[in-house]
Formats: sequence, structure tokens, C-alpha cells
Amino acid sequence: MPPRKGAPVSTTSDTSADNETSGGGRTVAPTPYRLTEAPGPLGADELAGLDAWWRAANYLAVGQIYLLDNALVRMPLRAEHIKPRLLGHFGTVPGLNLVWVHANRAIRERDLNAVFVAGPGHGGPGPNACGWLEGTYSELYSDIPRDAEGMRALFAQFSYPGGVPSHCAPETPGSFHEGGELGYSLLHAFGAALDNPDLTVFCVIGDGEAETGPLAGSWHANKFLNPGRDGAVVPILALNEYKIANPTLLARIPESELDSLLRGYGYEPIMVSGNDPGVVHQAMAAAMDTCLDRIAAIQQRARAGSAERAIWPMIVLRTPKGWTCPPIVDGDPVEGTFRAHQVPLAGARTDDAHRRVLEQWLKSYRPHELFDDDGRPVPELLALSPTGDRRMSANPVANGGLLLRDLRLPDWREFGVEVATPGAVKHEATRVLGGWLREVTRANPANFLTFAPDELASNRLQDILEVTGRDWQAEIGEYDVKLDRTGRVIEVLSEHMCQGLLEGYLLTGRHGVFTCYEAFIHIVDAMFNQHAKWLDAASAVAWRRPIASLNYLLSSHVWRQDHNGFTHQDPGFLDVVLNKKPEIVRVYLPPDANTLLSTYDHCLRSRQYVNVVVAGKQPQESWLSVPEAAVHCARGIGIWPWASNNDEQGVAPDVILACAGDVPTLETLAAAAILRARLPELRVRVVNVVDLMRLLPEEEHPHGLSDREFDSLFTTDRPVIFAFHGYPWLIHRLTYRRANHGGLHVRGYKERGTTTTPFDMVMLNDLDRYHLVMDVIDRVPTLRDKAAALRQEMVDARWQARAWTREHGEDIPVVADWKWT
Amino acid sequence: MPPRKGAPVSTTSDTSADNETSGGGRTVAPTPYRLTEAPGPLGADELAGLDAWWRAANYLAVGQIYLLDNALVRMPLRAEHIKPRLLGHFGTVPGLNLVWVHANRAIRERDLNAVFVAGPGHGGPGPNACGWLEGTYSELYSDIPRDAEGMRALFAQFSYPGGVPSHCAPETPGSFHEGGELGYSLLHAFGAALDNPDLTVFCVIGDGEAETGPLAGSWHANKFLNPGRDGAVVPILALNEYKIANPTLLARIPESELDSLLRGYGYEPIMVSGNDPGVVHQAMAAAMDTCLDRIAAIQQRARAGSAERAIWPMIVLRTPKGWTCPPIVDGDPVEGTFRAHQVPLAGARTDDAHRRVLEQWLKSYRPHELFDDDGRPVPELLALSPTGDRRMSANPVANGGLLLRDLRLPDWREFGVEVATPGAVKHEATRVLGGWLREVTRANPANFLTFAPDELASNRLQDILEVTGRDWQAEIGEYDVKLDRTGRVIEVLSEHMCQGLLEGYLLTGRHGVFTCYEAFIHIVDAMFNQHAKWLDAASAVAWRRPIASLNYLLSSHVWRQDHNGFTHQDPGFLDVVLNKKPEIVRVYLPPDANTLLSTYDHCLRSRQYVNVVVAGKQPQESWLSVPEAAVHCARGIGIWPWASNNDEQGVAPDVILACAGDVPTLETLAAAAILRARLPELRVRVVNVVDLMRLLPEEEHPHGLSDREFDSLFTTDRPVIFAFHGYPWLIHRLTYRRANHGGLHVRGYKERGTTTTPFDMVMLNDLDRYHLVMDVIDRVPTLRDKAAALRQEMVDARWQARAWTREHGEDIPVVADWKWT
Repeated sequence: MPPRKGAPVSTTSDTSADNETSGGGRTVAPTPYRLTEAPGPLGADELAGLDAWWRAANYLAVGQIYLLDNALVRMPLRAEHIKPRLLGHFGTVPGLNLVWVHANRAIRERDLNAVFVAGPGHGGPGPNACGWLEGTYSELYSDIPRDAEGMRALFAQFSYPGGVPSHCAPETPGSFHEGGELGYSLLHAFGAALDNPDLTVFCVIGDGEAETGPLAGSWHANKFLNPGRDGAVVPILALNEYKIANPTLLARIPESELDSLLRGYGYEPIMVSGNDPGVVHQAMAAAMDTCLDRIAAIQQRARAGSAERAIWPMIVLRTPKGWTCPPIVDGDPVEGTFRAHQVPLAGARTDDAHRRVLEQWLKSYRPHELFDDDGRPVPELLALSPTGDRRMSANPVANGGLLLRDLRLPDWREFGVEVATPGAVKHEATRVLGGWLREVTRANPANFLTFAPDELASNRLQDILEVTGRDWQAEIGEYDVKLDRTGRVIEVLSEHMCQGLLEGYLLTGRHGVFTCYEAFIHIVDAMFNQHAKWLDAASAVAWRRPIASLNYLLSSHVWRQDHNGFTHQDPGFLDVVLNKKPEIVRVYLPPDANTLLSTYDHCLRSRQYVNVVVAGKQPQESWLSVPEAAVHCARGIGIWPWASNNDEQGVAPDVILACAGDVPTLETLAAAAILRARLPELRVRVVNVVDLMRLLPEEEHPHGLSDREFDSLFTTDRPVIFAFHGYPWLIHRLTYRRANHGGLHVRGYKERGTTTTPFDMVMLNDLDRYHLVMDVIDRVPTLRDKAAALRQEMVDARWQARAWTREHGEDIPVVADWKWT
Repeated sequence: MPPRKGAPVSTTSDTSADNETSGGGRTVAPTPYRLTEAPGPLGADELAGLDAWWRAANYLAVGQIYLLDNALVRMPLRAEHIKPRLLGHFGTVPGLNLVWVHANRAIRERDLNAVFVAGPGHGGPGPNACGWLEGTYSELYSDIPRDAEGMRALFAQFSYPGGVPSHCAPETPGSFHEGGELGYSLLHAFGAALDNPDLTVFCVIGDGEAETGPLAGSWHANKFLNPGRDGAVVPILALNEYKIANPTLLARIPESELDSLLRGYGYEPIMVSGNDPGVVHQAMAAAMDTCLDRIAAIQQRARAGSAERAIWPMIVLRTPKGWTCPPIVDGDPVEGTFRAHQVPLAGARTDDAHRRVLEQWLKSYRPHELFDDDGRPVPELLALSPTGDRRMSANPVANGGLLLRDLRLPDWREFGVEVATPGAVKHEATRVLGGWLREVTRANPANFLTFAPDELASNRLQDILEVTGRDWQAEIGEYDVKLDRTGRVIEVLSEHMCQGLLEGYLLTGRHGVFTCYEAFIHIVDAMFNQHAKWLDAASAVAWRRPIASLNYLLSSHVWRQDHNGFTHQDPGFLDVVLNKKPEIVRVYLPPDANTLLSTYDHCLRSRQYVNVVVAGKQPQESWLSVPEAAVHCARGIGIWPWASNNDEQGVAPDVILACAGDVPTLETLAAAAILRARLPELRVRVVNVVDLMRLLPEEEHPHGLSDREFDSLFTTDRPVIFAFHGYPWLIHRLTYRRANHGGLHVRGYKERGTTTTPFDMVMLNDLDRYHLVMDVIDRVPTLRDKAAALRQEMVDARWQARAWTREHGEDIPVVADWKWT
């Protein structure tokens, strides 16, 4: 799109700086523009007011990118006024500011409860500017008042050491969406709108971001938004045509094709296009009016009982990249091209011509009309902002912790299973959890949701569907079951959508669970990383309140994907999670149904964490009664005396069998049983780990055991055979500073998988009971000779089990029918 | 969609089994159907032939899911003929088989060079069946001949211990696409078509898969397919309406909306819909003809010189899920519902009624017409398959290693930089690499591509654009630069698309590079995992030939994202990579320009690996000359004598400074310089690691050092201060079995980041030169008292650097201007 159109305000302005030539060629400053008269809903005064607010926000954005001082440009710009490193991105900012000011008009006219999501990358200067203009910035940061000194401070802190980042972040007033990694803006917007019937979310989507897979899929989130129960999302596709160095795909297809695409996604697009501010203001105001009128009508009909499917309106806003910036720099076109993406005048500190053009550029916004002598926005601007919580920069929805209410949690003990003796009965652990989650869902009908990528029933949480349906706003077919318009389970075959919607829901002050196959949770590694970083950074922002934790329930895990084979076997999400700040992450591996219940009760009460819980869905032994589970989970780690042998207080055991995870626990107990039967003199201690963080040193994690506690469990010198759910080196990483690390031998998943049976799967990775016994024999010096025969028996048992599996397609009965006694 | 339509073949068939009632309610077997006459391009014989082939493939698919024996059902089915664990998924299979047989017709009629991509999950029984019918299965697996015994073996191995998985996999003849994790089928298809002008890729996309973000974004891959240079992709959206437990989104929007969506993606959709086989065959044949005619016309025009944009045809195939399976099982509708997703008759082994219905189901395909007494497909069927390499199950494109040709690689030494003395000059390492990649691109104009998510120039590889443009088939705007129709760089703001297209390109026998910001490569963690698993499993398949390695160039890395802040800082992809099989993965951290060149030369020659190379783009010291770099990279790890102090042969150093990564190397050398100047008596050894795998024990990785070699570098008892590019615990994980692990102290990234300066960033993580010196003083016992003053100086220097940064926004000159001497 060509540079800005619109007549200049005056032809008598000093043009000496408008057209500078330095080493790189001609550099041309933008001139102040006159507002073209165009038809539209805005009266002349209103138009002038909106444009002034927009110019003010644009001025403040340019200032953030360039200026350390001389914020009002009351004196000629000198090198020392310019930042030594010019960072930040101007290209997308005028579009963001345009949407903000037009949203403000709608908020004032309609008394909307609205929030803003800035999708385009590095758009921080825009919302920072708007928040400062609205006064929120100064209310939250007393060292950044709304005056000349505050403006200087606002500018100086931007993309500066110790300051604020170039994109929206926890530090940004009114933002609940981090702008670092692209793709998730629309999901966060829809997540925020769920269960928020009075909320309007203005969501600006960059046309760069629109190329990402997660964003491309997330348009379909409208199939889960109930106009009766939920709020509204106004997607605004900001088509400024360029990314860093390339045009965008959606800007380079015919407009009819784009229109068709968006209609295919289920929207009614309204096109706003232009490079003349006066014309675009009128068109944008009209589009906003149309959008919000239609949304109001949709909601009204739905709330009056209509079940018709909503086709939601949206806006496509096509304006020049870097709109209002210098049209030409060093001979190259900049405004309206990819060169406006970042810092249009890169030489402003060192190149006098660039600096003079920067000064003209700043003055082209006519700051003297916008700010008084003390640097305060003039009253006409102040009057155009919404007030109080109606300001998008101050809406408490964007600081979800403020609105967070505790869940009403039924007593998990009442949902526990009877365990008279360890291992006597089998349960599907996640199925048991599902019974409790059903009641959690029932007791919290407006602030708790469950998300699943078509895996709710597969992961055995289907009992939730006894009290609610699956949310579904599209058509419902003759053979579809458990779908309804008000369902509190959201199922879509997209891990990205599940994660992103849940994030948006949590960030705006609600609670939820995401259940997923363990292997495929890697699909959202990057989203998890960014959410963990948000939580970490938000914890350091004084005015942010803690939000509910992000709770994963990973099932269909590596050890029970034997039938689906290698592609479905990957426990590595734990490794990704443990790279993040210890204060933020928690990993739990409950070994059975009651411990899973206790763990999840804890997770749903926690705040500001990511809780990863891995639990199996297949029938497996329950080991602990409800009271035992409560104690064990409170400790997070502990000796199981009933499974140990000759493990007396004060006498070091000969060997420690440690385990974390349901299948490793089963194999460990089976190994312990063999040892007890065959080597009754051996002192064997069984240690089970529920809370993986307990293994870390206490100075590295709040849950970490002291060395004294750790040594009291694991000794300082006895062999430890550790059967672990995940990749074995993770345990080494957690324990390498412990005294007995040298004695630790870990069995876990080693990327040896195939299509096979459950027991063959653990055998492939040497995590089976027979191999664990062999490990004990190999590592307890006194056993080497004494137990040679038993060792050979174990070797034979493995070959027999393997041969049986190959012949019968099932596990050998001695394993399949094994019982703890 | 309701169950199958079409008149039954005979009303006199034994109906006793058609309508069975057991504990669960009525179970109804499908009846053999008569082909409805319908208008269309198929003559009666051809129609009958196609249908017979389809029935044969469906029969073989059902057999795989259920049967251990009695493959031809020549005797009544007994329990022992049925697999003990019923695994696999029937729902999607009839659709896959339908596409396959109609593709075969087109291949024969048009002599097409075609391959098949099975996107829907767990569709393995379909392509397995088709490969066996075509004879390929028996050619590749001599124990599975094309006769009754082979049929039995084909059935028995499916989803059976030691057998083949339920989805397409490396074991599947004709597949280059793994069906485990959903979302990547269309990307693999387009990747295969690039630079393959004569190839047609039939790509079946499940409507479940279509909900994923990566798939939703990948429709836009058509903007990179040049009808002159590239082959064609025929997307077939298989709309069987259901996932595991839910309907699909695309099946529950009006057909006009779906049509609009696909047109918006730039396709011309042809709808084929029905549940009557005769009718659907005619419609599908007509749709295939239309598609292929239009593709031929598009290609003809393009190859005659037209530059018009192609709107490619595609097919929407709406047929019942589990088409031809029992319509009702235990009283519930199954065919045409989500219950047909997996195993429609779950009780076939134990429930007599289910087993009788299974027998009727198998017989409904009329196997006696399809297979002769020896179990061989009848000649009429054989005649309908293409022959030789024209069979999609035998096309060498799907076994890319067969077609792989070595790259012509210019001598990297000629592109190296002059390094007279270490550290005397600075270079942008990736820029230097870009010069060489430019020549690689020039020398290999038809089998080498570079992929980037809008980051090619940002990562300083823009010199490639001197010999080619960026591939772009959409419109080209007035201000767009370096875009053209035949470009050999593919840039799209989607890491998923870059990864998926490159995978498809590599899997079909070509070469490429993917350059990405380090932090955002996590977006494709899951895709990397699946590709690594493919390579691992493929290595065990005798007839698969090695393909070119997947080469990452990660730049804009954690230590130089100081300005973009916390969201852009994440070196954790290395941890994900190192969880995979050691045989498959390689990680390189070249410290400067020449080592990067040497490393990449090695990577582009390698096969069947994933090579991860991390390198900075900012100007930084070059340490090694071309010959030195060649030697150092060949070793992968080594002592740098010129940087060490008093490190004489045979005398153990007092301390080892180890480093891996460009920034850690810089800080280590700066620390070494301080130590040399201030503690000249100290024996300091500097060890640089390029190839991270060298740290692993030799029994764990082919590149691993023996303990003797490791100890000769790191000693068995001296303190080692290791400055590492990534998370520090990764180094512990690689070295915990080494003798001197207790002496190892690692500095790396610890999730402490913000918006700051480069040196402040390393200081935040205690990886800076001053802290490394402090580490040395703290760990060399003789220095504790002697160097107390120096230690305090280091503490002070850090505070001064921090204060300078905060005040000036830049690094303190003593650091910024530091030179190695």
C-alpha cells in the first residue's frame, strides 16, 4: 500500500527538514495532515477528537522507540536525546492505536465492558501509549506520572535495560496477552470471552501472525462461543501487508478470496481500507458500529432463547505499515513497506539528517495541540477516554487474579476408592478422578472448564458428561451425542486450541483442566514455555494478582501406548517443564487412584503454577487408602513400609527401590515381592515419589528436600534402583548434587518402543520387575555370587515373557495375573 | 451420515447372522451390495472392477484388525482365529481405499507418477492392504507373499507385538508420511511436490486432522507451489464426519461455508458425497478426472510461459465413517457414526454373536470373487493395479534415499574468513555461512531449498538472495522485493510450515536447511520428535535407504535476544533433541565463523540425522583460521593451547575452563585473559566443545569420547568451570558418569532474562567473565586467600557493568571494546 494520503495542514511549514539527503540518499519527513472530509458516522468535532487521540498515541509510540529525553521536543533534538540502541517496532503501532481509539469511542457510547488483545508482534509502544493517555500507567507506576517527566520516563524505560519489553507483557496495563511468540491472540481472546457474558474482547490479529498454524486453526473457536452464555470477540485482522522482510500471504490474495476465507471460518467480514486518516476514521467508526450492533442483536436473540447459530462480525483493517512514518528513508520507500517494520530511522542518534527528520516526524503529530506545557494530555483528549474500570488499560478482567474466586471443591476423600490391602483391587485412576471432576463441574457452573483434544472419554473422564455436555455451537447431527450449546467441556482436535483457550480463561480469572495424551502435549511445548514465562514475569509485577494454575492431566501415557507404538510414546514434556523457573512448575506422578485424587485437589487449589500430573487410564492396582494417600501426597515422597523388607529404623537397608509413576511403581513392587520371596534376608526399602520436585535440593525448589531428609530416605551409600516414568537422565539431573548420586541407577524410557504389549514395553526399556531384580543383584555386592541362580532365572523369565508375547499377542499370565501379597 | 445405501446383492442370503442379539442388544451385519447404476464416466465393467478392488482392500483391512488365522474365512470363524487384543481403526479405512483405487485408475489412464499420503490417524490397514494387492508388500517382505499364507501373515502382524503399527509408518510400502501425530499430511505432500515437476501427490486429509493448527495453516502452502517447476498436490478432504468421540467441525458447518473456506484457501473444491458405493464411484471418478484435467491444464499453461496464478482443484469426499461395516452393534448405530472409529465389533473373540456378525461382514465383500483358492487376487484385480514403479506402494519417491543425490558443495575453505591471530577481527558468523549457502544454492538448482519463518535476513543469510528469490506464487506488490515464482528460499511466518515442507522435501530424496530463531523452534518440538522417530524406525527397515539429514540453523539465540527480552530467550530445544535416539541426533555449537562453515559442510554431507547447529548472527570475534577450524571441528572438542596458560603436556592444570557456544566461548576467553594477567602462575586449560555429543560416554553415542580421552581433556580431579550455551543441567546429564563429574561446575541459562544488554544478559545468568573468574577462585583451593582481592575486584566490576548498563543503555566500554591479546 502506498504511503499516507491526505492533504498537508500547511504548505508553509519549514520544508528544509522534509527532504534530507545523507550518505544513504533522500530522506523525507511526513508532513502534518489535514483531515479529509468523508462520509461516515463521525461529526467533525468527534472526528477531530479521535484523530487527535490517535496522533497523541502515535507520538508517544515514536517517543518510546527513540527518545531518552526532550520528550516534548520543545528544543531541537540532539544526539544525547536519542537512545543509543534503537529498539522496538513502529510498523504495527498506528494500526493498534487506531483500533484502541475507535474501541474507546464504542466503550463510551455503549458503556462496554471491553478488553484489548494486541496480537501483532512487538506492538508494545501502542498499548503503553494508550495506557499512559488513559492515566492507568501512572496509577500503577507512580514513577511514571501523566506529565512531562512521566512522558520522559515512559519513553526512557521502553526496550531499555531494566525497562519494559517491546511487546505487550505482564508489565503492560490492560494486557493479559504476551506478544512475544505469535499465534495465540485469538485463542486468548476467545478464552477470555467464555463465561463472560458482558465482555467484549477487541482482538487485533497481525497478518504475520495469521500465517501461523495455531492462529489459522483458531478462527474456528467461534464454534464454541455461545452468544447467550459467553461474551463477544471482535477480531480485527490488521492487514498492513508486511512482516519483517516479506509481504504477508493474506495481503497478497485477492480481497474476494480473503472475504471467502473469513466467511468460510464462519465470520462476516467488514472491510476497512485506506491510507487517508480522515477517510479511514469514518470507515472504521462505521465498521465498529456495524459490528457492535450485530453483536448486540446476536446476543439479544440468543438471550431471548433463540438457538440459531451466530455468524459473528469481524473487521479487516488494511492500512499502511508504519502509517504516518517517514515515507522515504535513505532513498528507499519506508511507510507502507516492510522497511517500516522496526525502526524507520535507524541512524537517528548518529546521522544528523535522520535526526532532523525524526524531529519533523514527531512534530507532524502536532504535539503542541495534544499536550499542555506540563506535558499533560489536553482536556479534550482526556474527555475522550473511558473512565475507571471501563478503560481497557484498567479493566480488571486483564488482571484476572483480581476477579479469581476459589473453586467450590467437593471433598475428594468421598470419591476415593476402598483399598483394604495394597494392590487388592484395580481401578482406572483417571476414571476415578473423573467422578470427582464431575462434581467440581457441577459445583462451579460458571468458572470451571475442561478442555480435551477429542480425548476426554479416551482418557476416561467421561463421567463429567453426566452433568454437562460438550460445548458445540455448530450443527448437531443425528448420531452426535453429548453435544450441547452450554456444555462445560470443550473438545476440539487441536492441542493448540485447548491450551490457548484455557490460557485465556485462566488469565482472566477462572479455573480449568487440560487433559491430553502424554506424547502429544509436546505440540504445545512452546505455548507452555510462554505461559510459564508470563507467570514468572507477572509474579514480579506488583499490581498483578496470582491467577489459577494451569493444570494438565496427561494420560494414555508412554507405558500404555504399547498398542499405538513408537509415535505415541514420549514422556519428554516433563523435561521441557523442568527447564522453567522452579517457582512456577510442579510435576506429580501419583501411583494410583487415591493419590491422583489427592494430587488434583491440591492442584485446583493452587495459584500461579503450571501443574503437570501424569496418570494412567488403564485398570491398575490401588496401593493406598484415602487416609494413606492424603499423608503420602502431603509428603510428596515417602517410604512404603508395607512394601519394604527388614527396613528397620536406624539400620541402613541393603538396597533402595525407588519409583515414580504408576507403571514404574507396579514393576518396583513386583520386584520387591520377588526379592522378599527369594532373598528374604535382604533389607529392601521401597520409596515412592509423587512430587518430583522433592528430589531437587531445597535451595533450588520450594518443595526440595534438605540433604538430611534426602539422605534419610536414600542413604548416602547404598545402591538405589530408581524406576522412573520418564527419560532416566531427568532423575540424574534432579539429584546430581546429592551425596548418594553415585549409588543411583535409574531405569526409564529410553526411546525403545514399538507396537507391542504393556509388559513387553517395560521390558524393552529394562524397566520391568525382572530387570529391576537383576539390577539389585548386580549392585548389592553381597548378592553377586549368592544370587547368581536367581539372576539367571530373571533372565529366563524375560525371554519367556517375550516369547509368550510374540506367540499369543498378550502378556504372559504370570505377569498379567500377578497380585501383590 | 446414515449407513451404507445400495440394494443388497441377494435377499436369499443367510440372514440368521445378519441380526444377532447378545447381551448388548441387536447387532446387524452388513449385506453384500449391488452396484446402483448412476451416471458417470465409468462403464459397467470398469465400475465393477474398481468396486471389486475396493472391496478387496476393505476385506484385507478388516482382516488385519481381527484375524490371526482363517484369513479367507473358508471355515466358520472360531475364537482362536481372532486376535486376543483387537487394535487398529476401521473408520477411516474405506475412504482411504476408495481414494487409492480411484488414484490407480488415473495412474493407469494417464501414466501418472504418483504417491499417496494417508493423513487420517491410524489408517494403516488401508495402505497395507493396497500394497499387498499391488504385490509390493510381498516384494519387500518375502515372508508375506501374495497368497493365502501371505494374507494370514499380513493380518497377523498388524498391531501385533513385533509387527507393524496401526498407522502408516516407515514399514508401510509407499508411505513417506507417518500417521501417528496429526497435522502434517498436507505439508509433507507439498514438500514432496516441490521440485518434482512430474509428480502427483494424492493427499488424504482427515477431517479430524483438519482441526489442528498446523493443518489449518498448511492449506496456504499452495502459495509456494509453482506449476511450472513443481508437481501437483491433490488434496482430498475425507469428511467422514467423526473423530474418536465427537463430530468434526468441518462436517458440522453448512457445505456452502466449507466451500467458501476452501476457496478462500485458494482451491477449487469438488464435492463428492454419498453412501451408495455405485453412486460414489461414479462421482469420484468424475471428480478425479476433473481434478487431473485441470491440473494438466494449469501445468501446461505454466510450462508454456504463463505466469498466471493457479487455483488448484481439490476434492471433498463425504462418505460414512466405517463405510460397509456393521450398521448396528449392540443396539447402537455404528456405521456412519463415531462408534465406527476404531474396532466396530469389540467382542469378536469372546462374543459368539459378534463373531458371527464379523464373519458375515467379511463375507459381505464377497472374497470368493476376489481371491482364488490359493488366496491370490484374481487376475481381474491384478490387471487394475498399475505396474512397477507406477504403483503408489512402490514409487521410489516414497523411499527418498533411493533418489538422493549428493549435493555439489563448494569448498567451504574458500569462504572462510582470514584470522591472522585469534580474536583480532569480528564477523557475523551466519552471514559468512550465508555466502557459502549462496553458492550451495547456485550449484544445486533443483534439489536444495532453504526455509525460514520470515527470518532469513534477520538471521543474516540474505546473501542467498543474490542468486535466487523467495518463492512466491501469490500477487507481488509494488514495494515487495526479492520475491519470484522460482525462488529457492521459502519464507512463511509459520515454523510448522517450514518444518513440514522441509520434511516432505527430505523424505522424498532432497536436501535443505531450516533457519529459525532459537527460542521459537520449540513451536515444532513435536514435529521434530516425530521426524526423529521416523528416522530411527526407518533405519531398521531393510528396504529404506538413508535420506539427507534435517539441518537446523538456530540463530538470534538466547544470549543475543537481550533486546527482545524474556519471551525470546529459550535454549531448551537442545534438551528436547537429546532425548531422542543418540544414533539420530547431533548438536553443534560452533564458536565462530570458520567453525560454523566447517560444521555446516559436514551437516550437508550427512545422512539420516537431525543436525542442530546454534550460531550467532551478531559481530563477534573469530578465533580460528580455516585450517584450525577444520581440525577443531573434525575433533569436535579440543584444548585451545593459545588460550591456555602454563598448560604443559604431562602436568595437570589447576583449573579447566570449558566452553560450548559462541557467547560462552567469548566470556571464557575473557576470563582466561583476566586470569593470565592477574594470576600468571595459575595453570589454566581452555577446552572448547563444538560437537556436544563428544561429552557422552562412547557406549551411549557414536561420537562419545572414551573415558581415557575425556579424562585427558578434563582430568579426573581438577575443577572444571564449564560455560554453556543452554540450560546448565544438560551438561551434567551428558557427563554424570565421568570420573571428574564431581569437579564440574556449569554456568548456563537459568531462565533469568529480561530486556537488557548483551553483557547484562550473561551477568544475569552468572555466565560472564567476571563470574567465571570468581568461580575459578572459589574452586581452586590455593586461590581462596591469595586471590581474595581479585575476587572482590570481580564483584565490583559486575556492579559497575550493571550500573553502566542501566545508565547508558549500552554495555560498559571495558567489555564492549574488549580485545583478546
